[in-house]
Amino acid sequence: MPRQARNRLSEAMGQWAHGLIASWNDAGWAEAPVRVGDKIGRLLGAQPSEVVLGDTTSVNLYKALSAALSLRRGGALLTDEQNFPTDLYIAEAVAKKHGVPLRRVSRHLLGEGIQQGVAVVTATHVDYRTGHMLDLRDLTKAAHDAGALFVWDLCHSAGAVPLDLNDAEVDLAVGCTYKFLNGGPGSPAYIFTARRLHRDVTNPIPGWFGHDHPFDFDSGYSPAADGRRFLTGTPAILSVAALEAAIDLWLTIDIAQVRSKSLVLADLLIDQVRRQCEGFGLELASPEEPAIRGSQVSFKHPNAYGLVRALAEVGVVGDHRPPDIARFGLTPLYTRYVDMWDAAEKLTDVLKRRTYLEPRFGVRVGVP
Amino acid sequence: MPRQARNRLSEAMGQWAHGLIASWNDAGWAEAPVRVGDKIGRLLGAQPSEVVLGDTTSVNLYKALSAALSLRRGGALLTDEQNFPTDLYIAEAVAKKHGVPLRRVSRHLLGEGIQQGVAVVTATHVDYRTGHMLDLRDLTKAAHDAGALFVWDLCHSAGAVPLDLNDAEVDLAVGCTYKFLNGGPGSPAYIFTARRLHRDVTNPIPGWFGHDHPFDFDSGYSPAADGRRFLTGTPAILSVAALEAAIDLWLTIDIAQVRSKSLVLADLLIDQVRRQCEGFGLELASPEEPAIRGSQVSFKHPNAYGLVRALAEVGVVGDHRPPDIARFGLTPLYTRYVDMWDAAEKLTDVLKRRTYLEPRFGVRVGVP
Repeated sequence: MPRQARNRLSEAMGQWAHGLIASWNDAGWAEAPVRVGDKIGRLLGAQPSEVVLGDTTSVNLYKALSAALSLRRGGALLTDEQNFPTDLYIAEAVAKKHGVPLRRVSRHLLGEGIQQGVAVVTATHVDYRTGHMLDLRDLTKAAHDAGALFVWDLCHSAGAVPLDLNDAEVDLAVGCTYKFLNGGPGSPAYIFTARRLHRDVTNPIPGWFGHDHPFDFDSGYSPAADGRRFLTGTPAILSVAALEAAIDLWLTIDIAQVRSKSLVLADLLIDQVRRQCEGFGLELASPEEPAIRGSQVSFKHPNAYGLVRALAEVGVVGDHRPPDIARFGLTPLYTRYVDMWDAAEKLTDVLKRRTYLEPRFGVRVGVP
Repeated sequence: MPRQARNRLSEAMGQWAHGLIASWNDAGWAEAPVRVGDKIGRLLGAQPSEVVLGDTTSVNLYKALSAALSLRRGGALLTDEQNFPTDLYIAEAVAKKHGVPLRRVSRHLLGEGIQQGVAVVTATHVDYRTGHMLDLRDLTKAAHDAGALFVWDLCHSAGAVPLDLNDAEVDLAVGCTYKFLNGGPGSPAYIFTARRLHRDVTNPIPGWFGHDHPFDFDSGYSPAADGRRFLTGTPAILSVAALEAAIDLWLTIDIAQVRSKSLVLADLLIDQVRRQCEGFGLELASPEEPAIRGSQVSFKHPNAYGLVRALAEVGVVGDHRPPDIARFGLTPLYTRYVDMWDAAEKLTDVLKRRTYLEPRFGVRVGVP
């Protein structure tokens, strides 16, 4: 949690308790989806009004895919079959709604899958299991060459690796703010639309916050001229307040430095684990090559779940991703080099003592 | 703001800062949409698992209308033309998506509009402009008699008037929590589905939180067996925390007492305004008859906007709703009888001194 989050939230509580509904204007609540969206846009290499904040990643993906399929009628929707589950569910629903086939190909064959007949491609830039990173620029270009649009999920990219959406000519993208961006538990998501598409995209869930003049209370919908048309309902201000504290911190940070520390952290962890954990059935699931790895290191282990639980008990917080992945996110803003040494040592200890087999680590629970 | 909201939010911040991602299980974050949904359900006359918390009212209405039109294929969608704008935008989009006509009738003719050929009816129970309340039970029955489903918007009803959704055999309903429920600015919305429909309804935006086993990370979608299938993405926990404080307070309160105080407050305000403001062009826009009035009193005035602004400056906080409505919400939990006297006096003063014509009240701004 960024230290400033507490102050910002306290401030927002005061605006609620004392400013009452006037805070929608006086405290900038009504403009928050655009204001915070623009700030996130600066982290993504986007222009003002291309990014807006609101809803969840899943809902935004639904909007982006629907909008993309409406722009490129008739062709198939292509995705990688290792995509994040909620992305697959949404992709399937949207393809069905538009009456087009959903093609799934292996993540490593995504480029080859982009052919004639594909209208829209969607994939997660950095894979949630392995941290494998796709080439955002090349694949976007491949899609364009095939007459398709690309909708990117940046959940594991923003705040983890440098991004320049405008430079890569990205069409549409969505992402959460509660991972590397430190926005707080379940903090609102964002949606990016390239300015060149603003006039043509249609929000399938047209709500008043995406209206050109929401507070005119028109009975007819007239979409905002820019990326704001992807907004729908009223923003959850308290969650936005904490998130904005985190984003303001991010705006003072050079993501290139974050990336270079991230790569050293990852190499350190991989090296140490290799050195100490050989013969314990642990296998690197993340790419060896730093250039195609996000800011995480994942290992395969037959009892990955117990491993993650046992490590959490000694202060090394990772995630289990079924069936056999133990994932460790590296957040250079507050993860130190020495933490890699300590984590590797604790991992070795858990493996040697086989504490991951203890019954209390056997009950499956989940974490977003 | 409920006093407990500050403590709850502080607690949630601690869970974030110290419990980290383990709080998704240890602090009950992952279960919040169901837990808080069930609590709201008790206020609405619903059974456990019929109400879930998440998204915004607009998104939930999109889900409910899509689900309803999928259950009753081919017929028209009927709504009242005075419905809240975002409801009209959503209704139009959903009707178009399903390839069925959207019929709009005057609010007072809604009952007559429910005829053969109508598949789904949607309306806001208590009108946002006037406070006019429809007969929820009768209209639901009329819809059922015509073979249709009714999707209710309860934004201005929950916490304002007694509700018994099960008793009235309501099919589907949505609502916000940031008005009479005091959940905080833009706090998450809810969606109700009658248990008898659980197995048949389809969420058009199927996300992982509505999956039967979200943390199995299945690549195929398998909806939860109950109302939880209407969930989509990750809940905005900080906003949920403040809301839950408000809902816990509501669970200690007898809504019948709230209603009876609300009616006395309204009568007092109407009487006082009639007595003091005659001849100033103010006209009651709310129903005279208490039985068909929600918990608000609205007046028409040619300069309603300036009036609301001028009153806000002297501590009487209302809303302007275009073109000519000045709306005053009566929240019996913290609005006193004497406040009605004071409000009427201040309103009289503003009208007599014509302070609503001051230039600084001329700039239109909006509030959700």
